[in-house]
Amino acid sequence: MRTNSAIDRENAMTTNMLAATSTQTATAPAPLHWPRGFRASVGAAAIKKAGRDDLALLSMPNGATAAAIFTRNLFAAAPIEVSRRHLKDSRGHASAVILNSGCANAATGPRGLANAQEMVDAVALALGAASESVMVNSTGVIGVQLPMDRIAPEIAHMVTRLGSSEDGGSLEPFARAIMTTDTKPKMSARSIDCGSGRRVHVSGVAKGAGMIRPDMATMISVLATDADVDARTLDRILRHAADASYHRISVDGDTSTNDSVFALASGMAGSCDEALLAQAFREVACDLAKMIVCDGEGFERSLSVRVSGAASRADALRVAETVASSLLVRTAITGGDPNWGRIVAAAGRAGVAFRPSDLELRVGGILIFRHSEPCPADRDAVRAAFNGSHVEIEISLGTSEGAEAEANSDTFLSCGLTTEYVRLNADYTT
Amino acid sequence: MRTNSAIDRENAMTTNMLAATSTQTATAPAPLHWPRGFRASVGAAAIKKAGRDDLALLSMPNGATAAAIFTRNLFAAAPIEVSRRHLKDSRGHASAVILNSGCANAATGPRGLANAQEMVDAVALALGAASESVMVNSTGVIGVQLPMDRIAPEIAHMVTRLGSSEDGGSLEPFARAIMTTDTKPKMSARSIDCGSGRRVHVSGVAKGAGMIRPDMATMISVLATDADVDARTLDRILRHAADASYHRISVDGDTSTNDSVFALASGMAGSCDEALLAQAFREVACDLAKMIVCDGEGFERSLSVRVSGAASRADALRVAETVASSLLVRTAITGGDPNWGRIVAAAGRAGVAFRPSDLELRVGGILIFRHSEPCPADRDAVRAAFNGSHVEIEISLGTSEGAEAEANSDTFLSCGLTTEYVRLNADYTT
Repeated sequence: MRTNSAIDRENAMTTNMLAATSTQTATAPAPLHWPRGFRASVGAAAIKKAGRDDLALLSMPNGATAAAIFTRNLFAAAPIEVSRRHLKDSRGHASAVILNSGCANAATGPRGLANAQEMVDAVALALGAASESVMVNSTGVIGVQLPMDRIAPEIAHMVTRLGSSEDGGSLEPFARAIMTTDTKPKMSARSIDCGSGRRVHVSGVAKGAGMIRPDMATMISVLATDADVDARTLDRILRHAADASYHRISVDGDTSTNDSVFALASGMAGSCDEALLAQAFREVACDLAKMIVCDGEGFERSLSVRVSGAASRADALRVAETVASSLLVRTAITGGDPNWGRIVAAAGRAGVAFRPSDLELRVGGILIFRHSEPCPADRDAVRAAFNGSHVEIEISLGTSEGAEAEANSDTFLSCGLTTEYVRLNADYTT
Repeated sequence: MRTNSAIDRENAMTTNMLAATSTQTATAPAPLHWPRGFRASVGAAAIKKAGRDDLALLSMPNGATAAAIFTRNLFAAAPIEVSRRHLKDSRGHASAVILNSGCANAATGPRGLANAQEMVDAVALALGAASESVMVNSTGVIGVQLPMDRIAPEIAHMVTRLGSSEDGGSLEPFARAIMTTDTKPKMSARSIDCGSGRRVHVSGVAKGAGMIRPDMATMISVLATDADVDARTLDRILRHAADASYHRISVDGDTSTNDSVFALASGMAGSCDEALLAQAFREVACDLAKMIVCDGEGFERSLSVRVSGAASRADALRVAETVASSLLVRTAITGGDPNWGRIVAAAGRAGVAFRPSDLELRVGGILIFRHSEPCPADRDAVRAAFNGSHVEIEISLGTSEGAEAEANSDTFLSCGLTTEYVRLNADYTT
């Protein structure tokens, strides 16, 4: 497992973690594991197609404190309704999480709700746990019912296959079982040195692909730690981590019916300084958020937009998101096309007040636009800045200055819009 | 010229004109002409490439009342600044409009502003008119200066070539000269029977293609009438027409630096009932708006989203725009894919409050989703509804009922997102 002191990474503790792609661990050298107190198991119920794992179960034999963030879409899927209720009824305690891919169980009416309940009841029964301590979510096509005749028996089998290794086993089978159009499993882990050789671990998995935008997406993430932390603190840590990561990325601007991030703490490794634990959660969440964007449907090239010098941080975020989400900017990025006029035009329609003549635009560190007109810049260098694997856009609005300009800044991560994205999404259910 | 009584079309006087594609005159049988009191001329200044007309001049020898709507983008292009000032200084009077394609003269600083001024001064000089009576706009790439050494002399030539025919000549050369990535010239006309054989005419041209969304786009439109109407009334008529047409369409959600619609009235045909004139303007503007969508970059298939039963008309519009602009909905439409779950999910994230269980979804008139679950519908019929040249989506939110549900409704027009759109936009400046 990749281990490093959280303190060593303290300088990276900003939302700009999203922009600094080079320092990130997209592929860790050693297999990543669940922390102590977690057991994982996967199963195949031929939900969308036969022969692949499409069920993932995470069990906490000694229980865990739990927190979660759910989609704000009015059409929250049936499993979201069940999980939201269970989290409330259990007052932030959980003994298992059951997930499936291939079918979102969304827009499925009373029968869908009964099916979500049947999934958690099957897990509770097999584990001998209370129903309200089981959380559930689904990802895949909307408006189709789950094949419960295949899922319920498979859940019983999965419980018999739960691992018994000290550290809970590898993240990878679980991360693979929740994939839909993802091409790679998404995993990350950190460990924190708590002194006297005692270490606390934070591990996470996620699935992304489409419907990715702030307030989440068809994304599901599970973040697990063996730290001992109460439900209220865990909730606070989770919200900070999501705010710096999942709420700062976009693949297509669509928010799904099934978005969720679960945070679970088994307590097996004892207590941990809250700031260090929060940093580790944030780093794992930023790793996963970046993997989601870089495995976005039809991905070719990522872009980050950092806006500073706004009148407020909210204004900075609004401009950053508008630019990063603009179809014209995103297609220009795909083409490696230095059509920076589209960046400026997108900033100008963000609905944020600033003086156009104060705006400065840099791409890949090169000053491109200032005082309402293009700057003399080396054409080849500009072209190269637009043609890397990651395009870094920096906009200073000039509304605030100095330390205030830095405070009123934010970063948003997206990717070029490609023909492959359109092709994939034009033909998803058929 | 196509002539029909405006009164004959009174039943179509709703924003649903946008949805009813079949009744529209995308191609009129006879060549369309400018109304009396207008003279048009085009020229070639090799602004982007040689050998095509890229300058268009409309002259009103006896003057005209004028109104205009301009982009709300903070980076309004230099010609927009000049036209905005001239419209104000002249108190709504104009003697000419000069337009160019191939270069937007946006983000071009003080030199760009001087160039826009030089364009209007060249026209004013050649026509013997006051500078402030000349309006100007440009469309094309952002951040590049106009080749004034070629434009200024060509303007002088164009004035010598202004037509002298009674009705101002054909719309087509003008409509062609303002095209950028448009594949077809966009023109429409109506005439109004004012009694005793007297007719008033309304003619319009537009260019669209990319950067199309409400509050306009890289779209330029000129609407001309020979009716006698004061500037204030003309402004009111223009705003109503734009609200029902250009503000209800989207190609890619980007608002450009150069959006403008000019309305001009020569007065040569005498007065006209305001309601009839407003209807003719609205019909011409809706024709042009539809042509813009159906000639959107990479166009394959249009979609309209009508939302009724909202708590307010603004809510209806917000849901309609969110659904029509969703990348996942738009790619599904391209694929002819009955993935209606994406429509429901987009409605649920529009930020408008409604009870999900009250929503009803129809596509091509077929009830598909009600009471939070899919309805039994003929699979082939549903597939056919998603595979026509136009996909008609109707959503009832169920928040209001009866006459109120109809009043609290709105329609938005968009098009499927295609691989060709991405290909075109990934490689625009290069």
